[in-house]
Amino acid sequence: MVFWKRLFNNTTPATTSQYPQFPGELVEVSKDGSGQSQIVFSTDRDIDLYELEELCDSVGWARRPLRKVKKALDFSFLVGSMWEIRGNRRRLIGFARATSDHAFNATIWDVVVHPSYQKKGLGKLLMKYMIKKLRSEDISNITLFADPQVIDFYRRLGFMLDPEGIKGMFWYPD
Amino acid sequence: MVFWKRLFNNTTPATTSQYPQFPGELVEVSKDGSGQSQIVFSTDRDIDLYELEELCDSVGWARRPLRKVKKALDFSFLVGSMWEIRGNRRRLIGFARATSDHAFNATIWDVVVHPSYQKKGLGKLLMKYMIKKLRSEDISNITLFADPQVIDFYRRLGFMLDPEGIKGMFWYPD
Repeated sequence: MVFWKRLFNNTTPATTSQYPQFPGELVEVSKDGSGQSQIVFSTDRDIDLYELEELCDSVGWARRPLRKVKKALDFSFLVGSMWEIRGNRRRLIGFARATSDHAFNATIWDVVVHPSYQKKGLGKLLMKYMIKKLRSEDISNITLFADPQVIDFYRRLGFMLDPEGIKGMFWYPD
Repeated sequence: MVFWKRLFNNTTPATTSQYPQFPGELVEVSKDGSGQSQIVFSTDRDIDLYELEELCDSVGWARRPLRKVKKALDFSFLVGSMWEIRGNRRRLIGFARATSDHAFNATIWDVVVHPSYQKKGLGKLLMKYMIKKLRSEDISNITLFADPQVIDFYRRLGFMLDPEGIKGMFWYPD
């Protein structure tokens, strides 16, 4: 039996004091047949690029040059990651990042949750974590570009489609 | 009579050698009753915030705290400005900026052309200048959020609406 304990709405985020080697905020504790695990969120940018690539592979994304991925992480305003911790091991199970002008706007890119961890509400928690972090930096206009199959997911989180007729547009090289 | 000479598609951009105090790329020369003027584009960030505010006022945008505008300029990846130069005076007549992860994506914000200079093709030149600069930095995915009345303007520049059903979405604080 899986038991999820939501700690996300606590005013003071719990920290993973048991695992000081893993910086982050504890948001979930689950118990199943294989023992206790914790879900931890972090904004630490020190992410193993191969582990991130593996996560992106798991949802079928096209591979990107790691050199460019590294640069994108370095120049993102916010890098959010979601980890499962069991004992002294951690596994990257979710990721999102945001570009920003550090003042008005942020745009969230590359939202991914490992398929084995989907349908548990973790993607929602990851997005709430991103929104909370951006709001704490006084960013008030949070945008993203949603694939058709995740529009309802983002709508449930409060994202609006084409408000006042504003439309997302894309330019690609020929 | 107004005479516009387009220099934008030159392989080597002309520089304003006559006006070394104004860094930028010459893209237009016009002649009218009051003598010759030049249109110059620049990525120089040293923009007078009051002059920028005046430009934004001219199109009726809501005022924003200059402290935050300054921060947004500092942390934008690209700041593009358009100037009219007559003699030894220059006037800010257009502006756009882009946030980016410096690797894959850029999002263009705050595109504005002074009403007295609209309907002359200058907005199109400003956007082409932005695209050229972003492409020169190897950014391949250029996005923006367009108000309903400018969707066709951006479409003519090659921007696509909702490609493959991807939709722009917005989150604002309650």
